[in-house]
Amino acid sequence: MQTHVTAYDSTLRDGAQAQGVSFTVEDKLKIVVQLDALGIGYIEAGNPGSNPKDLEFFKRVSALNLKHAKIIAFGSTRRIGIKAADDNNLRSLLSASTQAVAIFGKSWDYQVTDILRTTLQENLAMIGDTIAYLKALGKEVVFDAEHFFDGYKANAEYALATLQAAADAGADSLVLCDTNGGTFPNEVFEITQKVVAQFSKVQVGIHCHNDCEMAVANSVAAVQAGATQVQGTINGIGERCGNANLCSIIPNLQLKLGFNCIPPENISTLTHVARFVNEVANMPFNDKAPYVGNDAFSHKGGMHIDAVNKNPISYEHINPEIVGNSRHILVSEVAGRGALLSKLREIDATLDKDSPDTQRILAHIKALEHDGYQFESAEASVQLLVLRELDKLRPSFEFKEYQVNIHEPAVNGVNSSASIKLLVNGQVETTTAEGDGPVNALDKAMRRALERFYPAIKTVRLTDYKVRVLNSDQATAAKVRVLIESADHNESWTTTGVSTDVVDASWRALIDAIEYKLMRDFV
Amino acid sequence: MQTHVTAYDSTLRDGAQAQGVSFTVEDKLKIVVQLDALGIGYIEAGNPGSNPKDLEFFKRVSALNLKHAKIIAFGSTRRIGIKAADDNNLRSLLSASTQAVAIFGKSWDYQVTDILRTTLQENLAMIGDTIAYLKALGKEVVFDAEHFFDGYKANAEYALATLQAAADAGADSLVLCDTNGGTFPNEVFEITQKVVAQFSKVQVGIHCHNDCEMAVANSVAAVQAGATQVQGTINGIGERCGNANLCSIIPNLQLKLGFNCIPPENISTLTHVARFVNEVANMPFNDKAPYVGNDAFSHKGGMHIDAVNKNPISYEHINPEIVGNSRHILVSEVAGRGALLSKLREIDATLDKDSPDTQRILAHIKALEHDGYQFESAEASVQLLVLRELDKLRPSFEFKEYQVNIHEPAVNGVNSSASIKLLVNGQVETTTAEGDGPVNALDKAMRRALERFYPAIKTVRLTDYKVRVLNSDQATAAKVRVLIESADHNESWTTTGVSTDVVDASWRALIDAIEYKLMRDFV
Repeated sequence: MQTHVTAYDSTLRDGAQAQGVSFTVEDKLKIVVQLDALGIGYIEAGNPGSNPKDLEFFKRVSALNLKHAKIIAFGSTRRIGIKAADDNNLRSLLSASTQAVAIFGKSWDYQVTDILRTTLQENLAMIGDTIAYLKALGKEVVFDAEHFFDGYKANAEYALATLQAAADAGADSLVLCDTNGGTFPNEVFEITQKVVAQFSKVQVGIHCHNDCEMAVANSVAAVQAGATQVQGTINGIGERCGNANLCSIIPNLQLKLGFNCIPPENISTLTHVARFVNEVANMPFNDKAPYVGNDAFSHKGGMHIDAVNKNPISYEHINPEIVGNSRHILVSEVAGRGALLSKLREIDATLDKDSPDTQRILAHIKALEHDGYQFESAEASVQLLVLRELDKLRPSFEFKEYQVNIHEPAVNGVNSSASIKLLVNGQVETTTAEGDGPVNALDKAMRRALERFYPAIKTVRLTDYKVRVLNSDQATAAKVRVLIESADHNESWTTTGVSTDVVDASWRALIDAIEYKLMRDFV
Repeated sequence: MQTHVTAYDSTLRDGAQAQGVSFTVEDKLKIVVQLDALGIGYIEAGNPGSNPKDLEFFKRVSALNLKHAKIIAFGSTRRIGIKAADDNNLRSLLSASTQAVAIFGKSWDYQVTDILRTTLQENLAMIGDTIAYLKALGKEVVFDAEHFFDGYKANAEYALATLQAAADAGADSLVLCDTNGGTFPNEVFEITQKVVAQFSKVQVGIHCHNDCEMAVANSVAAVQAGATQVQGTINGIGERCGNANLCSIIPNLQLKLGFNCIPPENISTLTHVARFVNEVANMPFNDKAPYVGNDAFSHKGGMHIDAVNKNPISYEHINPEIVGNSRHILVSEVAGRGALLSKLREIDATLDKDSPDTQRILAHIKALEHDGYQFESAEASVQLLVLRELDKLRPSFEFKEYQVNIHEPAVNGVNSSASIKLLVNGQVETTTAEGDGPVNALDKAMRRALERFYPAIKTVRLTDYKVRVLNSDQATAAKVRVLIESADHNESWTTTGVSTDVVDASWRALIDAIEYKLMRDFV
């Protein structure tokens, strides 16, 4: 029988501590729905004592009809020298009205005496009193033993005594925290094994941080040592170097080690959930993220591509579809003809290896690559190019000319203006716009010209803009390659342009971005 | 006595396989210099057989006077059924003329029979013949056992036989590769331990990929099991989810486990090297990178900040200055400035830590960094800034205004014209020039204006031009940072500019480039 390991998500609490992350109540509710659908067991959603916004959230979340997840309110042990019932923070915690709560307390003797500045005995009482009080109120209680591993290494007896105080007071689970992220997997394994043996009647959990790039390995090591609750965040969002990344831990446990962590039928939504949370958190997505990143199953080297075409297990540790991701064969100079061909077949399955169409398209791509285009990360531009070559693209507009004027110093923060002339449905359309730099001015002018004909363009946001100088030794006469990533409500796509003029290269990528959107809408 | 573990960097070979990464020969040479200064033992720098550009690199790198690093050319075992001496790829490999080479061969029986499509016996012969041939030519040979762990798990006897073939032929090191990144630390530990016991006379190395977010943990586990060579890349750059990240592995081994990996006095340059390589690769830097990231020692939560103020070990696993990073207290934005201070003293040795001049310069730099400047790789701009603040720079000219016009389609290959107005020696100087793009036109107009007064400018070539988009989610209104490298007959220098307009950012960097040259000539 498979051992069950409870996935415990803290994206909305510890994750929200990350630099640059700030969730609205609406954001948090949306994420809860996604985490519940994924099959997460516990969602630690906030600290009502330290964040008043959270109270509104807890009120609204209780109205959701969650299938898997229990919502957890997070707080600290009672303060020094008072009764738990008199502690304001605990009162705030209870105002969240959750059935389950998490309480953190100190396990490192030095933190008790030097940071908290109380006695080791009082700290044990703070842990015990707080948990006993909450248990008496019928709550399920998770005890987070802060700095447990550092504490254990400094004074094992005392660190274990803090767990004992929590267990004696009725805690339902004891979570070993590597708060500073400095512990290594072999240590986590050994120490967790001892704790599991000593506290065999309570669930033991693990909570890691990534300061040594070990958070995932540490979490897995703890489960291998007998922990049955694993805390982390989606995409590893968190303070400093981040928390343990549940998007790696869950498939590692479930697909590689045979633990039962979320319902097996849900694991194919993992990539979707990872990207959704990222969008809501408004963070740049890590393309190289294991399992769920855009590049996680991308193949570039020619020899690798040949082997993957023969059998994917050659260079893939799992089938990407299991986690809802997909394989990408990157079109690039390192890749041979084989790579290009499989890419072309994704666009048009009827294309034969030796057909004149294929030959012409390949020759065109090769010529453009020679000019500095690099299509591996601009699949939308490749698709447009192929469709144009096959005469399968009805252009939505035709570019005639533009004029851009830049003047420094800027006047009232504006330094650029652009005039463009386009042909749309047989009509000549001219518009002008001012902007924050020449590319911004061109973007605005083009939208002004086209939105009247194609209102769908309004949903397109430009989400990323990259500039790469190619023959950089040519200095200011060097060629530049621009990549623009765009998104609407459904998907995102990347387009590219190359020119000796950065403004012109950007313009080419902009045109493709809009043309791709219109092509998709009418396919 | 500390055990020595050789750091083996493959940023320029396996790292260059990453999506979006493409190094010029100049880039590669610059990175070699940095890696050597850091104390890396081996630099795997390219595959002359698959990339003709690499030959020029190997020719030029041999002229560098490296202190620590051996340069490695990388290639495959001989092809099926021919003699090693007749193999074209091996001939290319030898044309690199390096003293040390790395050869990869297959260790997974399935890869031999199904991908390579030859017999298990022939594969052993391919490994043995190739290495024996190279040893006879006096080379130091590293054998990369591709897919070693997957191979071991499928057929341990055969996987070990491939190592034996390499060892019998005289290989100097046997490197166990987790090519697909699917292996876990406990498996790596056990298997490596067996290999080390069986091959006690040869150096054993480890080469991991990050597909399960385990690459750093796996590399460390292998060293704990007795491996004494660890392969990886700077910032974990690499195909799919990346290679093992040397910027985490080196401090993990050296600071946490007491191995001797690079000269101890060099570890404080780790953050600098990480950021340098990133800039050269033109990749967005991972702020959350362990040890070297901007956020790695950032504290946001109020309670964490209080505790860190009482004692940093409360929420820091190491002192950030050890790796050349610094603490960031996000509320007050008070950052450690040790590195910057030593840079200031390089420019003016009389600057005292607490003097009003120093305080003012630091405040100015901090404000500019907040605006997106990053001075790590633009020392000429830092120098100008400091001299201006100290009122020690006599400006060679004063900028008044410019106008740039861009029109597409281009006429006779020209699409841009620039008019500029400068004040030189009290005279107003106006010039215009046409160019290949707006930045080129501005460059020409400025030279035209200044060359009459300062003929030395004629010797200045702009040798590199890089554009980085900062807040790329702002799309075409994003800020961009431009780096321009210039050279005359004696030296080269790098300047920087930041603006929401790429033309304006380039202009700022151009002005600094020329001003620096004139300042040097008159010092």
